[in-house]
Amino acid sequence: MSDLLVRAARGERTERPPVWLMRQAGRYIPEYREIRQDYTFREAISTPEVAERITLLPWDIFEPDGLVMFSDILTVLEPLGLDYHIESGVGPVIENPVTRPAEVPDNHTDVREELDYVGALLERLQRSVGDRTSIIGFTGGPFTLAAYAVAGQPAGKKQKPIRRFRVEYPEAFRSLLERFTDVVVEYVEYQVEAGADVIQLFDTYAGLLTPDDYREFVQPLHRRIFEAIDVPSIAFVRNPGGSLDLLADSGADAVSLDWTVDMRRAREQLGDVPVQGNLDPSYLLGDEEFVREKTAEVIEKAGPEGHILNLGHGIDRETPVENAKAFVETAKEWEWE
Amino acid sequence: MSDLLVRAARGERTERPPVWLMRQAGRYIPEYREIRQDYTFREAISTPEVAERITLLPWDIFEPDGLVMFSDILTVLEPLGLDYHIESGVGPVIENPVTRPAEVPDNHTDVREELDYVGALLERLQRSVGDRTSIIGFTGGPFTLAAYAVAGQPAGKKQKPIRRFRVEYPEAFRSLLERFTDVVVEYVEYQVEAGADVIQLFDTYAGLLTPDDYREFVQPLHRRIFEAIDVPSIAFVRNPGGSLDLLADSGADAVSLDWTVDMRRAREQLGDVPVQGNLDPSYLLGDEEFVREKTAEVIEKAGPEGHILNLGHGIDRETPVENAKAFVETAKEWEWE
Repeated sequence: MSDLLVRAARGERTERPPVWLMRQAGRYIPEYREIRQDYTFREAISTPEVAERITLLPWDIFEPDGLVMFSDILTVLEPLGLDYHIESGVGPVIENPVTRPAEVPDNHTDVREELDYVGALLERLQRSVGDRTSIIGFTGGPFTLAAYAVAGQPAGKKQKPIRRFRVEYPEAFRSLLERFTDVVVEYVEYQVEAGADVIQLFDTYAGLLTPDDYREFVQPLHRRIFEAIDVPSIAFVRNPGGSLDLLADSGADAVSLDWTVDMRRAREQLGDVPVQGNLDPSYLLGDEEFVREKTAEVIEKAGPEGHILNLGHGIDRETPVENAKAFVETAKEWEWE
Repeated sequence: MSDLLVRAARGERTERPPVWLMRQAGRYIPEYREIRQDYTFREAISTPEVAERITLLPWDIFEPDGLVMFSDILTVLEPLGLDYHIESGVGPVIENPVTRPAEVPDNHTDVREELDYVGALLERLQRSVGDRTSIIGFTGGPFTLAAYAVAGQPAGKKQKPIRRFRVEYPEAFRSLLERFTDVVVEYVEYQVEAGADVIQLFDTYAGLLTPDDYREFVQPLHRRIFEAIDVPSIAFVRNPGGSLDLLADSGADAVSLDWTVDMRRAREQLGDVPVQGNLDPSYLLGDEEFVREKTAEVIEKAGPEGHILNLGHGIDRETPVENAKAFVETAKEWEWE
């Protein structure tokens, strides 16, 4: 593998920032939309040859320093017996949501068997381009998984169902988070065995908890997960501004920042914790010059040590491919003195 | 007027924290739901006698230290010629949204005439209970108003339409914010003349901007607005964690915090800036003992100087009235040494 991304995730000074984009194999690429005419999202992620083709699309366009497997943050719902499908125009819908304590799953099937297609995908990626880029595995984090499991469908900007569940059934809430953590731990170990060079945990919604609840219910589980990961790891939470210290202390090697925090200030607050991010994805809807200018600002603010260039969140489906390319090229052409 | 709230907003030490709840005259009160069977939301806010009856409902239940007029953050769309209605299950829908630069309004009708029902309401409130509580006026802030104006309907957790508009048409974006600011300035002046003792600005979505964009586009407008307000003023932004310093430096007397920041840490960061908040509204869905315990934690963390007790956001419509009462009583029974 090319180790630029791994070195930055470990906090090393790099000659230029390594770069990849969250959701880089997605709808903004015309070939992706073509492939998806033949496969549903679930079919595409669970068929290794199709998932490999999709994962490699951005590689053919701009050779990012990290190639994130084409998969879903919700795959681990399956080993817990939570069936879901993607409803067009809605998002993931869970057929048997957890609405009361008795419905918290108390065991799970074998993760390696249930999610063998993920292992197969990572092995394929490692064989095809593993010597030229870093292969990135990922999963949803326990709070975000629980938020989907309880709501049964996308639950809006305040994620009310899971926050209500926490208040009404605090013990069941804790158990549910722990069950997800058990599965996530097995899953990340499996991903590393199968070839992941880096793992990112998306606990996207954890920033919607009060910092006290985050500290009490979620942070110890993040630590359990990151302790189980033997490769460089990255923690992602949206709206992290109120919990930056908790995120930095999660046990992850690096912290992925969204665009609502300033990179320079975050660096000051976080000390030498490696960071990833954090260009506003909407900036990639501007013209190419604007993209290059704003990308350079992020790189300048982050400095040469332990920075992985990325967006603050997934790339927008309406992004011109040329702009994604300009973003990547800005990093590739960068030279720290 | 009773001046406990005003004194706290000015940063004074108070014998106990003054208390009110955002959206305290709302669906969680059975009488509210009854009244609303006879009037649409727009009818209710624009008919002073009805709006007064609704505003006073929480007064009859728990006598809060602030009585917030029953109105809408979007009323100022009207003087700018943006017509909107509330669609059941959707929220506010604007019939003629601003989708391109040519549609940015370039003038506005007389705010005092267009929104005379707001002045009439404030005068009524001042007459009926103005000697026993503080009357709170409010409006949406420029970025939030622009977000609605551009999207034309509620735009989800990332407010993509306005963020895209900012990138595609930065000059029109600036003009749109300025037009809203012109109207908001007239509107808050009118509210103070009509009897508002305190004004709160809800620029709810401004925390979705990058801190650089917030500083460049929004903060100077907040300053213009707060300079025009001759009574104590409060600034509210959701997810303020990444922009707390900008919010504190907006020219408002006090800063209203949502539940995603820790009150104690915010106090450390903000120095002697008065604060409002910040109980997680979902905590009011627990049992009464839990409500009292968590409310006391917020009061303890905030300390005796310049703290207005409130929720981190509007009260949930499923809140038991008894819990809202327990929240208010916890403040009323408090005694700082």
